[in-house]
Amino acid sequence: MEKEKFIPNLYIALTHYPVVDKRGDTITSAVTNLDLHDIARVTKTYGVKSFYVVTPLADQQHLVKKIISHWTDGSGAVYNPSRRRALELIQLKDTLADVAEDIKGIENVYPKTVVTCARKYPASTGYKEFRDILKLGRPHLLVFGTAWGLTEPFISEADYILEPVMGPTDYNHLSVRTAAGIIIDRLLGA
Amino acid sequence: MEKEKFIPNLYIALTHYPVVDKRGDTITSAVTNLDLHDIARVTKTYGVKSFYVVTPLADQQHLVKKIISHWTDGSGAVYNPSRRRALELIQLKDTLADVAEDIKGIENVYPKTVVTCARKYPASTGYKEFRDILKLGRPHLLVFGTAWGLTEPFISEADYILEPVMGPTDYNHLSVRTAAGIIIDRLLGA
Repeated sequence: MEKEKFIPNLYIALTHYPVVDKRGDTITSAVTNLDLHDIARVTKTYGVKSFYVVTPLADQQHLVKKIISHWTDGSGAVYNPSRRRALELIQLKDTLADVAEDIKGIENVYPKTVVTCARKYPASTGYKEFRDILKLGRPHLLVFGTAWGLTEPFISEADYILEPVMGPTDYNHLSVRTAAGIIIDRLLGA
Repeated sequence: MEKEKFIPNLYIALTHYPVVDKRGDTITSAVTNLDLHDIARVTKTYGVKSFYVVTPLADQQHLVKKIISHWTDGSGAVYNPSRRRALELIQLKDTLADVAEDIKGIENVYPKTVVTCARKYPASTGYKEFRDILKLGRPHLLVFGTAWGLTEPFISEADYILEPVMGPTDYNHLSVRTAAGIIIDRLLGA
């Protein structure tokens, strides 16, 4: 049975702060070039409204701008126009609070926040259930954490926590790029 | 409704030859470090038996070996043991014919080949249909092409062509890393 396709009122954010390292300490992670490319292409494919890249560090913001402009204004735009159409959906913000304000400016309400985590929480929301919520059309912001994931307080404060992506094994160490693709396909794919 | 989980008799290959460039000419593409990491982690997550990386170029094979050994024998193995468990599933081969021979050595029969393509073919197989085929337990080899994808003759000769991964838009330019994650989740995810 094919699932019904729909254009969602969904925004996504990839945050580099606040996230945790291997030991669970809160850190600001470095930006990974291919995270921007891969998740921008997912954003464009699935009709997500914007892809916010969040980092408070000036040098990292400079790097993000340089990557984007190469593909949107530079020689990359001529070489690969389809890549331009994806990367131009990226918006750079200092904090997740700035992202929420930006969306409020567009939608007139703050988005409900949705987070993903490799651990299962008692209150986790399933993909089918959240797909049905998205179909109602209210704005939602889906937040992905880099490094070892979002911090515990941030996860607890979200409106929804999606179930971890699991295959038939107990191994769950996907890259954030891959996890973002799979999660958005489960929510919006046919 | 949750889909039933099962451990498949599936192998995957990422090939750097024969693939096409932007103009449709047959080329040998360069290896991308994060393709190896991301697809190895998908392989481990979904219980795929092996992840074959195919390139006929000696310098590229040297690069692949160096990446793998850093995470399986080097300091990376100590730093991140879960990454080691994924990367040790990678096997390096010169050609796809060598991959098929290797699988025959394990399974006593050649695998049926399955390819993916961003274009829709009249004979494309849907994900649900192919999931049911996999459940029968016969060995299959799912082949992903790098660059602008697999060559036309190679696609035509495959036993199955999977439908392109599409969202609700007409944009279909996912990275091979993301496409591999989504396709394998559709076939083997819960």
